[in-house]
Amino acid sequence: MGRKADPETTVPDGAPAGARDLLLETASQIMRDGDLVDISLSELSLRSGLNSALVKYYFGNKAGLLKALLDRDMVAIVKSVEALVAKDDMSPEAKLRRHISKVIDTYYQYPYLNRLTMRLVRDSNAEEAQRIADEYLTPVHRAYSRLIKAGVKEGAFRPINPQLFYFTVTGACDRFFSARLVLQHCFGQDTLTEGLRDAYREHTVDIIMAGILARRD
Amino acid sequence: MGRKADPETTVPDGAPAGARDLLLETASQIMRDGDLVDISLSELSLRSGLNSALVKYYFGNKAGLLKALLDRDMVAIVKSVEALVAKDDMSPEAKLRRHISKVIDTYYQYPYLNRLTMRLVRDSNAEEAQRIADEYLTPVHRAYSRLIKAGVKEGAFRPINPQLFYFTVTGACDRFFSARLVLQHCFGQDTLTEGLRDAYREHTVDIIMAGILARRD
Repeated sequence: MGRKADPETTVPDGAPAGARDLLLETASQIMRDGDLVDISLSELSLRSGLNSALVKYYFGNKAGLLKALLDRDMVAIVKSVEALVAKDDMSPEAKLRRHISKVIDTYYQYPYLNRLTMRLVRDSNAEEAQRIADEYLTPVHRAYSRLIKAGVKEGAFRPINPQLFYFTVTGACDRFFSARLVLQHCFGQDTLTEGLRDAYREHTVDIIMAGILARRD
Repeated sequence: MGRKADPETTVPDGAPAGARDLLLETASQIMRDGDLVDISLSELSLRSGLNSALVKYYFGNKAGLLKALLDRDMVAIVKSVEALVAKDDMSPEAKLRRHISKVIDTYYQYPYLNRLTMRLVRDSNAEEAQRIADEYLTPVHRAYSRLIKAGVKEGAFRPINPQLFYFTVTGACDRFFSARLVLQHCFGQDTLTEGLRDAYREHTVDIIMAGILARRD
């Protein structure tokens, strides 16, 4: 593999190959399990079986680790939204339906993602905050603009402000984030299950699609 | 007024009348301005002009102050939802429309409210967490159940799961919370204005009402 030759992937003495990815994945699991947007380095070390000095080595500090986790999770999302919008053989309605489904699934997998983004935008200097917005938020908003414009043009969608629509979709889907606590104390359910995710996905797609579709009457 | 006679409202030496309310209102303003769910006691003292020892006197500690703020903000909301649902001379559709508008206005006024609720549910012991859920979350969910049932019965609404609908409404409206950062970095707008609030209110009511109304075709 010649890993040693690449400064990006050079591993320090005693660090197993894949240690960087394992630290990120373990941090992701800790935040998901704890419904939090923070980790303790000692828990990370305990659960990953890796020395916490490796955090310093790979990420500089905890803030660097959180930033790397955001990058890991967000790149895939932005790529998939852009690929979906660029598809030629799919109607705007089908694209939006699939997109909303994917947003729900993403938040099920990474329930900390929106809160992590907001935390990093808030805690970073102006330049880094702008980078996060430019790379991960603005492209999604731009994709919505194009999708809604295409749907309105073919008469499938009502004219809807894409900027506001962005808040509606991320907000409604995002609610999965803090749902665990509400479920536990209001509804006596202990966790977010796949069954509940599926029900919420169907419900959300239904409501939002009905909200944007042009009335055909 | 006989304030001294009531242990609840007895003020310590040197504390102006209304000091308790002023501390709560100042804490509310600080969290609103900073887009945060936390306050520093020194900033609270500085902005209110009151000695921070009064926080200890009235609320025990900062956690007690945050809890009192939640109680202040939430009691009015729950009462207004329950009064709305109980109204005899209004259709379920008109009630829901008015309710969603009010949720947007509430989050505009108290943009920290959902995050504060989740924080206090998370940080409290089981008994206090259950009290918050019982007093402030469950009643709203129950009101939704009654409202949707009434709307479905008269053919105005599609049958919608009220538990899931609760997440849709609070999530979509709640997005106003973290909107400030997104607006600043993605859209070059610096604050949440009344104009934007009004636009988002209309947009949200439109989308959600279209999502729940039975198709009349």
